[in-house]
Amino acid sequence: MDDYSKKRVWNGGALTSPLPPALVSCGTIEKPNVLTVAWTGIMCTKPPVTYIAVRPQRYSYGLIKASGEFVINLPPASLVRAVDLCGVRSGRDTDKFQLCSLTALPAAAVSAPIIAECPLSLECRVRQIIPLGSHDVFIADIVKTDAAESLIDEKGRLALEKAKLLAYSHGEYFELGRKIGSFGFSVRKKKKMSKHNHH
Amino acid sequence: MDDYSKKRVWNGGALTSPLPPALVSCGTIEKPNVLTVAWTGIMCTKPPVTYIAVRPQRYSYGLIKASGEFVINLPPASLVRAVDLCGVRSGRDTDKFQLCSLTALPAAAVSAPIIAECPLSLECRVRQIIPLGSHDVFIADIVKTDAAESLIDEKGRLALEKAKLLAYSHGEYFELGRKIGSFGFSVRKKKKMSKHNHH
Repeated sequence: MDDYSKKRVWNGGALTSPLPPALVSCGTIEKPNVLTVAWTGIMCTKPPVTYIAVRPQRYSYGLIKASGEFVINLPPASLVRAVDLCGVRSGRDTDKFQLCSLTALPAAAVSAPIIAECPLSLECRVRQIIPLGSHDVFIADIVKTDAAESLIDEKGRLALEKAKLLAYSHGEYFELGRKIGSFGFSVRKKKKMSKHNHH
Repeated sequence: MDDYSKKRVWNGGALTSPLPPALVSCGTIEKPNVLTVAWTGIMCTKPPVTYIAVRPQRYSYGLIKASGEFVINLPPASLVRAVDLCGVRSGRDTDKFQLCSLTALPAAAVSAPIIAECPLSLECRVRQIIPLGSHDVFIADIVKTDAAESLIDEKGRLALEKAKLLAYSHGEYFELGRKIGSFGFSVRKKKKMSKHNHH
């Protein structure tokens, strides 16, 4: 194992990793917009609550504030160019759905569209806005989830690992790599071993 | 490209991906504790603000609330077993640093220790607690960053991609895989091409 025990102390920086470089869609199905947001995550399991942090200067900021609705779409690695473009270009002067060949589909519960090319979309309704400095945080209820039928197996489970989701880490894009465990494996393996030992 | 255009609509669920299954250390250097938190992310760039969502029943919840301080440590994939154990076991009855062979080092600015085996640690001070249901959100300033000397190159850049960070996605642990771009690449490539075309 590498030795990370010697540390250099820096001032605080906004760096955690890996993160989902989510395509956040907003506006309406007639006039949709999309921007890339890596400053997102889960805040609560029950009820399901998420957030996005957006600079007030961004074109999407006004759209989301006005409607109180947006959709978090998780992109597969194959969409890396669209993800990058939607983080750099502004919807003020560009139709980013057209520029990136993305397809807007109507959502089930919100006015913002979902993105057809993404395997998973979270339909969100804003419950609170917290200004923090460069970014405002939109805390939002996840009111519906749209999952790709092609990834749902016969048991009704979403085989999200097949989608090869895109990851963002310290300014770079990565594919998710090798699977090396599932939640709880460290305890399950121990139980199996102790069964073997005792019987 | 796979066809994700046919959707099945579910009720909202707490699922975004990939996420960092962070080792959150708390308590003191004399009596440290650690728990795994994937419900974390960046909320603001300037000033740097992060959060962790923790169930009030967790042992660490009281420690963090009392001190107002914690550290987010990003684990390499080699620590996957420790990460899983620290999500399943409780510090009430287990010394998880000892159980997982983790080394507590003093932090620069907070009472909670940093974890020697992690390449990057964010020292955090709580600024606000938001109860949302199953989880309370601790919004926190990132006051210091501790980076592994062995990953800092001659230009002072943290080569975090060398650390092979662990990712969490829909109940499973993954290594970060192939790098497929860096922020802004979609625009930089276009500029290069247009230069070629015009000269």
